[in-house]
Amino acid sequence: MNTIGTLFRFTDFGESHGKAVGGVIDGCPANLSIDFEAIRRDLDRRAGRGLDYIGISERAKAENDEVIWLSGLKDGQTLGTPIAFYIPNKEQCPEDYQALEKTYRPAHADLVYEQKYGIHDFRGGGRASGRETVARVVAGAIAKQVLRKYGISVNSHINQVGNATTKEQINTLLQSLKDQNNSIGAIVSTEIQGLPAGIGEPIFNKLSARLAFAVMSIGGCRGFDFDEGFEGISKSGEEQNPLPHSILGGISTGKTILFRSVFKPTASIGIGGRHDVCFALRVPPVIEAMTAICLTDLIFCAQNFANNLQK
Amino acid sequence: MNTIGTLFRFTDFGESHGKAVGGVIDGCPANLSIDFEAIRRDLDRRAGRGLDYIGISERAKAENDEVIWLSGLKDGQTLGTPIAFYIPNKEQCPEDYQALEKTYRPAHADLVYEQKYGIHDFRGGGRASGRETVARVVAGAIAKQVLRKYGISVNSHINQVGNATTKEQINTLLQSLKDQNNSIGAIVSTEIQGLPAGIGEPIFNKLSARLAFAVMSIGGCRGFDFDEGFEGISKSGEEQNPLPHSILGGISTGKTILFRSVFKPTASIGIGGRHDVCFALRVPPVIEAMTAICLTDLIFCAQNFANNLQK
Amino acid sequence: MNTIGTLFRFTDFGESHGKAVGGVIDGCPANLSIDFEAIRRDLDRRAGRGLDYIGISERAKAENDEVIWLSGLKDGQTLGTPIAFYIPNKEQCPEDYQALEKTYRPAHADLVYEQKYGIHDFRGGGRASGRETVARVVAGAIAKQVLRKYGISVNSHINQVGNATTKEQINTLLQSLKDQNNSIGAIVSTEIQGLPAGIGEPIFNKLSARLAFAVMSIGGCRGFDFDEGFEGISKSGEEQNPLPHSILGGISTGKTILFRSVFKPTASIGIGGRHDVCFALRVPPVIEAMTAICLTDLIFCAQNFANNLQK
Amino acid sequence: MNTIGTLFRFTDFGESHGKAVGGVIDGCPANLSIDFEAIRRDLDRRAGRGLDYIGISERAKAENDEVIWLSGLKDGQTLGTPIAFYIPNKEQCPEDYQALEKTYRPAHADLVYEQKYGIHDFRGGGRASGRETVARVVAGAIAKQVLRKYGISVNSHINQVGNATTKEQINTLLQSLKDQNNSIGAIVSTEIQGLPAGIGEPIFNKLSARLAFAVMSIGGCRGFDFDEGFEGISKSGEEQNPLPHSILGGISTGKTILFRSVFKPTASIGIGGRHDVCFALRVPPVIEAMTAICLTDLIFCAQNFANNLQK
Repeated sequence: MNTIGTLFRFTDFGESHGKAVGGVIDGCPANLSIDFEAIRRDLDRRAGRGLDYIGISERAKAENDEVIWLSGLKDGQTLGTPIAFYIPNKEQCPEDYQALEKTYRPAHADLVYEQKYGIHDFRGGGRASGRETVARVVAGAIAKQVLRKYGISVNSHINQVGNATTKEQINTLLQSLKDQNNSIGAIVSTEIQGLPAGIGEPIFNKLSARLAFAVMSIGGCRGFDFDEGFEGISKSGEEQNPLPHSILGGISTGKTILFRSVFKPTASIGIGGRHDVCFALRVPPVIEAMTAICLTDLIFCAQNFANNLQK
Repeated sequence: MNTIGTLFRFTDFGESHGKAVGGVIDGCPANLSIDFEAIRRDLDRRAGRGLDYIGISERAKAENDEVIWLSGLKDGQTLGTPIAFYIPNKEQCPEDYQALEKTYRPAHADLVYEQKYGIHDFRGGGRASGRETVARVVAGAIAKQVLRKYGISVNSHINQVGNATTKEQINTLLQSLKDQNNSIGAIVSTEIQGLPAGIGEPIFNKLSARLAFAVMSIGGCRGFDFDEGFEGISKSGEEQNPLPHSILGGISTGKTILFRSVFKPTASIGIGGRHDVCFALRVPPVIEAMTAICLTDLIFCAQNFANNLQK
Repeated sequence: MNTIGTLFRFTDFGESHGKAVGGVIDGCPANLSIDFEAIRRDLDRRAGRGLDYIGISERAKAENDEVIWLSGLKDGQTLGTPIAFYIPNKEQCPEDYQALEKTYRPAHADLVYEQKYGIHDFRGGGRASGRETVARVVAGAIAKQVLRKYGISVNSHINQVGNATTKEQINTLLQSLKDQNNSIGAIVSTEIQGLPAGIGEPIFNKLSARLAFAVMSIGGCRGFDFDEGFEGISKSGEEQNPLPHSILGGISTGKTILFRSVFKPTASIGIGGRHDVCFALRVPPVIEAMTAICLTDLIFCAQNFANNLQK
Repeated sequence: MNTIGTLFRFTDFGESHGKAVGGVIDGCPANLSIDFEAIRRDLDRRAGRGLDYIGISERAKAENDEVIWLSGLKDGQTLGTPIAFYIPNKEQCPEDYQALEKTYRPAHADLVYEQKYGIHDFRGGGRASGRETVARVVAGAIAKQVLRKYGISVNSHINQVGNATTKEQINTLLQSLKDQNNSIGAIVSTEIQGLPAGIGEPIFNKLSARLAFAVMSIGGCRGFDFDEGFEGISKSGEEQNPLPHSILGGISTGKTILFRSVFKPTASIGIGGRHDVCFALRVPPVIEAMTAICLTDLIFCAQNFANNLQK
């Protein structure tokens, strides 16, 4: 289903080659003054505008991401009612359609969508294209503004592209892959600051499990870890136990949370340079969005629980 | 909340130092003949009985795991109604309680539980102890039996303990750490075979995201990846794209799924050798359980969707 | 929250004095050819166009109900993805706004909305206005088309207005109340035909409970009963038990289901005849919509359950 | 599914002819001192012990309703973790089983259960027997204790049995029906006092809709209404609008809520007087239970929403 969350819920709709993509945010409190500039900045990051990496697709930068607000706001303030919005897709020219219909390629989801939906139209498959992340970014930007009221911030940045770890190395690698019509994956680091202790649930809804769920719902994500993660495998308990733990028993400790996520290389390579060499470079605002949506929901649930009998 | 799943749901209850742990399985079809021996085998694996690794806690092996069935079965067959069961905890001697009350230790969740629940009783914290996994294993063993009807199997095994990757190396490492009252983490590999194409949802409920959620809900899990995962970071698109992909756009392709999960070292070290040197050695049946619970739920949802208008 | 359903889900958004109302239908199967004419007919009934009752508000008839489809359809066919749509509200003239701000009246919800949302804007309250039912009617018309594939029909009609039970009596009553700037309530009967046996759940999700929930979510609904209902109070078991029962133990028996719902009089009386004398006359398509949304969801859940191990 | 609620959730299990019935309460706050005497009083009312009506089944009075607590409590106080409990069923003698297997009777659910679950065992059907209400009463008694902390009370009482409305009339009617091996239905009134304004949601989760859902999930319930309800049909807006409204736009106004529910006659008549003449006489504590479970959940959801940005 296309909804995530319990008390702060986001429903996503739209196909990449249809009329629009968009969403409905349910459970956002009233009286929040929306910072539309902040939404715009995240949309720019997602489109790759202003990123000084090599090999960002020009098509991505030119994607339309003008947001039409349908409900839930008045004079830029939330009403406490569902916030519905959409982002019109650009007109498709017929050649694009036809090209797409012929390009079932390895590592693409087109085929599995046909199997699942039993429908010979690429737009079903269009659900999982990078295009849908534009709605996540809008919703997430609002969630980040809610979190800011609690003093919580979420920041994602590129940690590693292939084996390259500095901007210079990364751009050298990207240039070389671009020249070969090749692509590469990346690891993104995310830092959550200001989250109070007590967020998350002991059994199934552990904070770590919910964050993994939220982030791994992003297309192309292949893995998630936090604290020492996979790299901690070589350290003993004596070495690790005294380190700061951000999440224990599934619940936040109040310390800064650092998690990593890994993204696969762009699948659509070799078709004329229209695609990113490394789409993951544009993923950080999407990760921030999913993290913020997840945290807002968990905070609302936890807050409620704590307050219940304290009146 | 303490329930996981939409159509095949598992609700978990019980504290490690209370009377019992247990659960309720809702949505299991009628007419399934329960293989109680298979449940028993998984409970033995979870307790470490029969494992030929060094440093498995004797206390774990001696844990009670006799299952009392309260509902949902008649003559060993499911009725289609909720299956409720519990596993009584052993009587605690008072000294155990007192010892526990004094041992807030680094890397334990005791403190965060106090902050969350506002209750100065260690049993709240007891929710997240390893003890609760016994109920997951029972529910998961039943889910695996449902999956077997569809020709699907789930198998987890130890992949790496610290930096050791063979049984011999592993036991050498475990012996050495045991001698030092130290502990270590492990990476577990899980293989899903026979899963048809089309399972999972394109946006939030991607198969990969749901598996990550299910597995990372296990205490001590610090990371999850699948297919090339974190190790694929160094391979280009040209190298990776032709490889078999088990999940595309969040949906199963019909190919074998291989995922990894990493567990931290045992936190309770140095208190008299009563704890595992590497608790992750007993985790494989718990991972199989959570994987099976997750897959059964997703299959029921997907099956429904596919069938809806095909009559 | 603003979503109803488990497998067939409808999320509703929009304020009556905002830009638009609309919704997202999630879980509608692919390959359904939408009958747009049927949607139009239900919208006409909801607006009161073509109803030959006295006292239908001219303002209601002139309401805009042009549907803009954003996603989930291609060439009039469902794609299996979320169907998002909206209906623009007409421009409000400032005098309307001001009039509204001053008219907190008895039997209106304005005040409770202020208390709930803590926001001094009438548009929050606008959520529960009759305007939002336009989105329900669109979603319900699609659900009815799904049900038609299963041979199921849902039909609602006016049973009683005040104490009047024939068209002639009803119009005489309506005329007299209109002349007095007064209003009246009605009882609506709904008939579900073709529903197979086995729909509904034994404990909490009884078919009758879910229908009551769906129908009583319509503004102004004050009661629901089925089969003998409240009127059966005077008949003994010997008289009632042999009658046909449409729902037993919460589950459909396969017999025609007949339920009643009662609606209160229009609250906004005496302000210049702009309101219906009896808004319930325009409610039947809304009841059909909520009934169809409810049934589609329950059928999808039940179907799945029955099929699970029958492969 | 067998769970009700979002933040305060109750999962029900057990078959009437199986080993036990019981449930799991999830989301109950920590530090509540359970009043076991109050639970006992409600169980007595449900069993008919102490009711001075004629024709209460002796078998019902003798039903076992000893509660075994498995988790969630320590020293009579809640821990904030799931509260699991069960009530063992009495041993069945073989003749009872055989009698039951032969008595598919009109107005019973046995047949539909067979159709739904595809299982020729009466215990599936046993899910919806009156027996399962014992678990609801336990959970509801705890919910009532939570509500008491907020100053909220819920009280149900018999309003009408057949056409009789006074105790004396009622007993005369019951005696006469008992002599004829006949049965009768009843209308129960419920009063909610102390509920603050602002509980309930404007669209689907209207307080009235959720109450109807909760109450109509009780076996044998055929209708629900509130405020003027069905009887208000004959009063005009001018007469009704000035009356106190307990729920407007789906949200509580802070005024006392009065609702009615109607129950059908006992279906099992004429088999030796072992059944109630009017089972509805024992239903009031079940209605209170479902009402309290529903209100606690809605309060927790509403409370959360209101508090979100007010820190």
